Amino acid sequence: MSTGEKNLTSRGRATRDRIVETAARVIMARGVAGTTIQDVMAEAQVSTSQVYHYFSDKAALVAAVIEFHAGLAEPAEPADPDSVEKLERWCRNAITTQIERDFVGGCELGSLASELAETSEGVRIQLVQAFARWEAPLRRGLRAMRARGELRPDADPDALALALLAALQGGILLTQTRRNIDPLRAALTTVMAQVRSAVITPSP
Amino acid sequence: MSTGEKNLTSRGRATRDRIVETAARVIMARGVAGTTIQDVMAEAQVSTSQVYHYFSDKAALVAAVIEFHAGLAEPAEPADPDSVEKLERWCRNAITTQIERDFVGGCELGSLASELAETSEGVRIQLVQAFARWEAPLRRGLRAMRARGELRPDADPDALALALLAALQGGILLTQTRRNIDPLRAALTTVMAQVRSAVITPSP
Repeated sequence: MSTGEKNLTSRGRATRDRIVETAARVIMARGVAGTTIQDVMAEAQVSTSQVYHYFSDKAALVAAVIEFHAGLAEPAEPADPDSVEKLERWCRNAITTQIERDFVGGCELGSLASELAETSEGVRIQLVQAFARWEAPLRRGLRAMRARGELRPDADPDALALALLAALQGGILLTQTRRNIDPLRAALTTVMAQVRSAVITPSP
Repeated sequence: MSTGEKNLTSRGRATRDRIVETAARVIMARGVAGTTIQDVMAEAQVSTSQVYHYFSDKAALVAAVIEFHAGLAEPAEPADPDSVEKLERWCRNAITTQIERDFVGGCELGSLASELAETSEGVRIQLVQAFARWEAPLRRGLRAMRARGELRPDADPDALALALLAALQGGILLTQTRRNIDPLRAALTTVMAQVRSAVITPSP
């Protein structure tokens, strides 16, 4: 969190948000290494003193961009996907999002992780936390299913949640590169088949 | 392929290889956007005229780096993994590689795809071809299993091959970020469980 973020006026908050959203857009197009604070200033039409009022340096701005994408990655629905139907909906949403984007852009958080995982320990930990916010509802949902006796005792909810997140990340990257939905669909469908095979069918 | 690559003397070939390997190393550390031809020249200890003798511009050098990683991604064993045992070995190799690297660096081809998929259509197609060289043995192996009647008729070898490649890409990215093997292992294990469930057990 950048200095003073909590004490911003609503106008200050709006300016800060505009800088972060602009930085997120520029970074998605050019990568972190290809983006300067000057680029963001020009795009967001803010002055040097405005940018440095909110962000001490480029690293602070990049941290805010990761936080921005981590927030977007959180599910729109507050409830955890704790049934096959809800997990299927989660997969369908991911597929629909990529189709609506014409497979362009990939996963913002995945791209940032790919570019930044080796740059600093602080950034790496922030990325771990961002992915964890994405994974947590899946893990809680699958754990709840097992706790209710809906999954076989030998099913591993944590491993299935990780496999779903990995299928999403790898699937989006291949779908982005190929410009078709097959990789993401195949990846998610395969993991979901495994989830379904772990479901205990109630005896009639 | 850069100008004249086919007509190089062995010394010329060695110099070109050194430039490409150095560029690959520098790009993995700093990204394509953060790497200049000057950086590569300094690291490889070659002159401007040497670099431009082999590569007309940075794009040509980046194309050679993608080709370099695509070649490394090809399996060491020429035979396709056309059994559960061979597919398991493929997975174990991927896991061992990441453990031996201390989870650092991620997948070179995945990182390049993440950074470059939107930069130019030519580069995107080169990345598609690079991933295809990785995927092809998996697809041929799974197709062979089905053709021999070892997989259920409703099993989709192409989807399983894509799911394995996606699990690998997403699993490596999460494993790199978290610095532990759990995501890659969970991703590959889950897809392989699905492969195994498609195997027809011979009747006794």
